[in-house]
Parts: sequence; C-alpha cells; structure tokens
Amino acid sequence: MLKAIGYAAQTAQTPLAPFAFERREPGPHDVQIEILYCGVCHSDLHTARNEWQNTVFPTVPGHEIIGRVIKVGEHVKNFKVGEMAGVGCLVDSCQHCPSCAEDLEQYCENGFTGTYNAEDKHSGGVTYGGYANNIVVNQKFVLHISDKLDPASAAPLLCAGITTYSPLRHWNVSKGHKVGIVGLGGLGHMGVKIAHAMGAHVVLFTTSPDKKQDALRLGADEVVISKDEQQMAEHANSFDFILNTVAAPHNLDNFLNLLKRDGTMTLVGAPAESHPSPNVFNLIMKRRTLAGSLIGGIKETQEMLDFCAEHGITSDIELIPIQDINLAYERMLKSDVKYRFVIDMASLTKEQSAA
Amino acid sequence: MLKAIGYAAQTAQTPLAPFAFERREPGPHDVQIEILYCGVCHSDLHTARNEWQNTVFPTVPGHEIIGRVIKVGEHVKNFKVGEMAGVGCLVDSCQHCPSCAEDLEQYCENGFTGTYNAEDKHSGGVTYGGYANNIVVNQKFVLHISDKLDPASAAPLLCAGITTYSPLRHWNVSKGHKVGIVGLGGLGHMGVKIAHAMGAHVVLFTTSPDKKQDALRLGADEVVISKDEQQMAEHANSFDFILNTVAAPHNLDNFLNLLKRDGTMTLVGAPAESHPSPNVFNLIMKRRTLAGSLIGGIKETQEMLDFCAEHGITSDIELIPIQDINLAYERMLKSDVKYRFVIDMASLTKEQSAA
Repeated sequence: MLKAIGYAAQTAQTPLAPFAFERREPGPHDVQIEILYCGVCHSDLHTARNEWQNTVFPTVPGHEIIGRVIKVGEHVKNFKVGEMAGVGCLVDSCQHCPSCAEDLEQYCENGFTGTYNAEDKHSGGVTYGGYANNIVVNQKFVLHISDKLDPASAAPLLCAGITTYSPLRHWNVSKGHKVGIVGLGGLGHMGVKIAHAMGAHVVLFTTSPDKKQDALRLGADEVVISKDEQQMAEHANSFDFILNTVAAPHNLDNFLNLLKRDGTMTLVGAPAESHPSPNVFNLIMKRRTLAGSLIGGIKETQEMLDFCAEHGITSDIELIPIQDINLAYERMLKSDVKYRFVIDMASLTKEQSAA
Repeated sequence: MLKAIGYAAQTAQTPLAPFAFERREPGPHDVQIEILYCGVCHSDLHTARNEWQNTVFPTVPGHEIIGRVIKVGEHVKNFKVGEMAGVGCLVDSCQHCPSCAEDLEQYCENGFTGTYNAEDKHSGGVTYGGYANNIVVNQKFVLHISDKLDPASAAPLLCAGITTYSPLRHWNVSKGHKVGIVGLGGLGHMGVKIAHAMGAHVVLFTTSPDKKQDALRLGADEVVISKDEQQMAEHANSFDFILNTVAAPHNLDNFLNLLKRDGTMTLVGAPAESHPSPNVFNLIMKRRTLAGSLIGGIKETQEMLDFCAEHGITSDIELIPIQDINLAYERMLKSDVKYRFVIDMASLTKEQSAA
C-alpha cells in the first residue's frame, strides 16, 4: 500500500488534524498524483461535521484537487509522469449505465463514487479526498490541466467551475442571452465569469450592496440587489436563464418571475430546509421551468477546463496552509472569503516530517 | 348590436340563470357562430363563483365552443357560412409581441383576451362566453372543426384537449417514451387519449382504484394507484415525461422521483393553496425539471383538432340541457362526471322563446 498523510476529522465535533493513512498502489489503469493544491468546498465542511448524517469517520475531505502526475499504470496512455492533472468530485462510476454511456457519470444510475466519504470499490472502506499529499485515481477520472492555468487558482474549477459551467452549457447559454446568477460566493463568482465568457449579458443578484463593484469586476454587466423590489420589478419577464447558487432557503418566485416565457431557473444548491413552495401560476403562465443540476461529467469537466484555459478563467482564491483549515471553515460560515480557500499542500511538509 | 341569450351568474352566490345581452355585429374580420355545444370547464365554476376574486358580474362562462358559422365579415376568407367552427379560451391578443409572433398567443406579452370575463377591446365591458346561443370572434381566433369529429364530444378539445396536447407536443412525447398522466378527470382523460395516440407508453396515476378499468379503456397501458408506495417505487427513475393535471395540493416529490435523468414533470393545474415544497435534491440529483404549461396557441389548437380528427379522439362526455348547469357544477365538485359535461345549446330554445 501507498503511504499518505493528510488532514482528517475524527468525529463531527473535533477539528481537522493530521492523519496518516494508506492508498492503493496504482494499478494498470491508475494515475498517482502528488497533490499540490486543493480547494475548500462547502461540502467538505458539511461532511467533516456530519451535517448530512452520512459521514464515515475518520474523513479526509477535498475534491478540488490539482497536482503533478508521479506514477502511471502500464495501460495509462493519456497521462505522463510530470504533467499537471486534476481530480474533481468523482473517482469512479459503473461505466455501463445509460448515463455513463452518455458521459454523464455524475448521474450514474448505479451511483458514482465520490472522491471522499464514498464506498471505495478498490480497497474497501471509504474514499479519502484531497486534503492530503497524494491520491490514486483511475485514468478515466483524471483531468488534464493546461499550462495556461495557474494551478492553485484552477483547483476550484474542479467543483465550483464545473457545477456552474455544466448547467450554463446544458441550457445553451450563449451570446445574446440575458443570464442571471443568484449569489456571489464560490459558485456564483465562477458562474459570473463563465457566463460572461460564453457571451451572455450577465446580471448578478445579491442581497449585499457591497458586492456590487466586485461583481462588475468579475464580469457582471449589471448587479441587482435582490431585496430591492423596484430593481427586481424592472427585470420582470426578461431572463433566458437563471443559475441559482444559493443553498439557503429563499423565495424562488422572486426569481421565477424574472424569467421570460420558456425560461429556466436551475438550482445547484440544495437547502437543508425547503425553500418556500414556488407558486405554480408563475410556472404555468409563461411555461417556465425550475430545474436542478449536479456538478458535471468527466468529458464536460475537461471541456470546461479547456474553456477556462482558453478564456483565462480561474477562481479568485485565498491560499492557506493546511494548518489553517479549521479557521477557514469558520470564515466560510460567515461568507468571509473571496471567493474560495485553496490549501497549499506544500504546508503539509511539516506534518510529513513529524510523521 | 346583435342580440344574444345565454346563462349568466349575476353574483357569486346566485345560480346561473337566463340572461339576455348583446354582442357586437360582426366586423369585416369577424365570424359569427351559432353555438351548438359548449363544454363545461372547472374554470367556468371558479369564475361564476368568483373564486379567483376577479369576476365582473354578470358573467357568462364557457370556452369550449362548437357551432355553425352563420355570418362572416367581408375580409374573412377562411371560413364559410354553414361550416362547423370552434372557439376556445382566447378571442384576442396583441398580435405583435414575440409570443404572438411565434403563434403562442396564450403567452401574449400584453395579455390575451379570454373568451369570458376579460376586457372586451371591441365593445367595451367584458367578454361573454359560450353558455349562449351565439358568439362573434375575430377569424384569427376561430378554429376549423373536421366533419370527422362529433361536434358535441369535440367541444372539450378546445380547452381540455389543447391544455394536454400542447405540453405533450412541446416536450416531444412520441413513440418509445414512457409518459405518466396524473389524475383522471376532464384534463387527465384527454391526456391519456392523446399521449396514447402519440405512440407513448402511457401510465395513468390515480388515487381511485375504481378508475383502473376506465383508464385502460381510454388508452392507458398501465394504471398506478398513487397512494400505493410499493407500486410507485417500482416506477422510480423511469419516466421521460409526466403531465400532472391535478390542481389540488399534493406531494410533487412522489412523482418527480419517478422521472428519469433529464425528465420533466409539467403542471397544468394550479392549486388555490400551494403544493408542499418539492425537495430540491430530487431535481438536482437527476437534472430533472418541473414546469408549467398554459392551454395552447391558435395554430397549435388547430393542429390538435386535426390530430384528434385523424386519430378519432374526442372527449367522453355527458350531454346536458343548459337548465341543468347548476346541478352539473355540484356534480363536478364531487368529481361525478365522466369526463366532461357538454351543454346542448338546443335546450336554450325555451329561454329564447320566453325572451
């Protein structure tokens, strides 16, 4: 087995702390990656604190992984030792169901294997994520990272990037479209950048007037304070598509009413408690649709990474040593991050030498 | 002005009763129709009893109208005196907004003119519907009724038929699709017939086991008792499309969970009180969509009528004299109708001779 060191939560109540564990040795189809950077997603916090009541402890979070290939199995043709590679939210799927056959592994009918806290079908136990010095992943779930991308700020593309890119692409956002992005957090700020690069007229909705300048800098054409009824009313029936990144329960009708006939609002955040029930009249009267979308498949994730490389898009990040992860979680809870924490895995050296 | 006689509610509390009124004389673009049959839609009852708090009294309901053309204006080329014609839920729209330009007058950005209880832009006051001996309508809002269709049982196609046909067509239901129809009332029974004729595998969902045989007779391939969790579970993740015709508040998740990845459930009934809020996870995990749809445009209504003529589809009706309309309303409230009341307007003769 391959020795690894990372940061794990041992219980829902304890802070993350150094943790030595093992990974499988790379098999013929595997790629071994030395992790350089790992983004910090809100799902990491939910899992570490068992907020979804499904965490198997100890848990090593992290699914926005970028690093260098240090070993490849004999059947690996597409990756070479020394190149930069990424791993996102998925490390396995059944590969034969209709969704997998359509390159939509995130909707695998038999259940995809998450990068952490999922049943590990190779080694038994659960999968351990990217808050660690290395990872071993089947080549089909490894992404190429262009040299044009700064690896630290590209890490969040693997979850926040694809989660916003996939619905924008699926619902055919393009030049001439008026697109709303609700919320300016880790997901929302990627949504603004990507929708802008797709050529859309981008309107950012936020409850915080102090985010206006930042939203404009990131690529929004307009910013609407969603608590301001007058501003909202001015945009009634005008949007082709709205990407709603807010997971906290809120009134969906306020945004559904801004859609044109045949417009769609897609939710990528799921609240722990339900949103107030949307008014069915608002759907019927304009044939509007309310949809959901989950991350993206591997093929589309590569497409997104290449799109971002071409358009010079990465995440706005705050780089932290892994020793600050518990503080970072506290700051995330206060939305005190612009717009994604990324762990510099070089900081793990201390722990490695101690181990 | 043209004299007309019909049945009207004078207040929300009084039964419908004979009512003499006037229509405009047909102008150069108008068609005057002698009404032979008019279907009884639940909207008629809502309006007569002011349940949507927008009724202008007296009100003459009725928007499932079939009759004979008895006069045409000088610029009317498409209709001839003596032919059968129909009028549905719309009698006017702006004709220049994007929705009208796409033959989707039901979504007219400036508001369509309903067949009854809408502002009458020709004569002032409000429009009066089809519980009457005649009607005058702009030729653009008049439909051709094939000789292949029995006129009495074709009347409900003008609302119940198009309300179900339009979403089934819009979401591309066809051979090889598994399609659910929720509810077996006036709308649902049309949905079953039309989806069957489109070649879909049709599953009817009902809470009433005693509707099973009837549903199979109408064209359903399977019937599922929606209160039976085991039966419901057997259909999880298997539907391409579900048309939900139930206006009473109910748990939408029970049906959303039956959709495949990328499946859509479209609501055509709007409850007075909200449905319980759907679980966003059920949308996200399979990229499902929840949509609404409103009747249909004039071009599509003609297409639906021609489709029904070709496939021998009409409504299952109970023909009543207009003097029984108040009793019919009471029976509708108990769902005691298979599946649509249609008024035989010949029964108005008594009132006409009295008038």
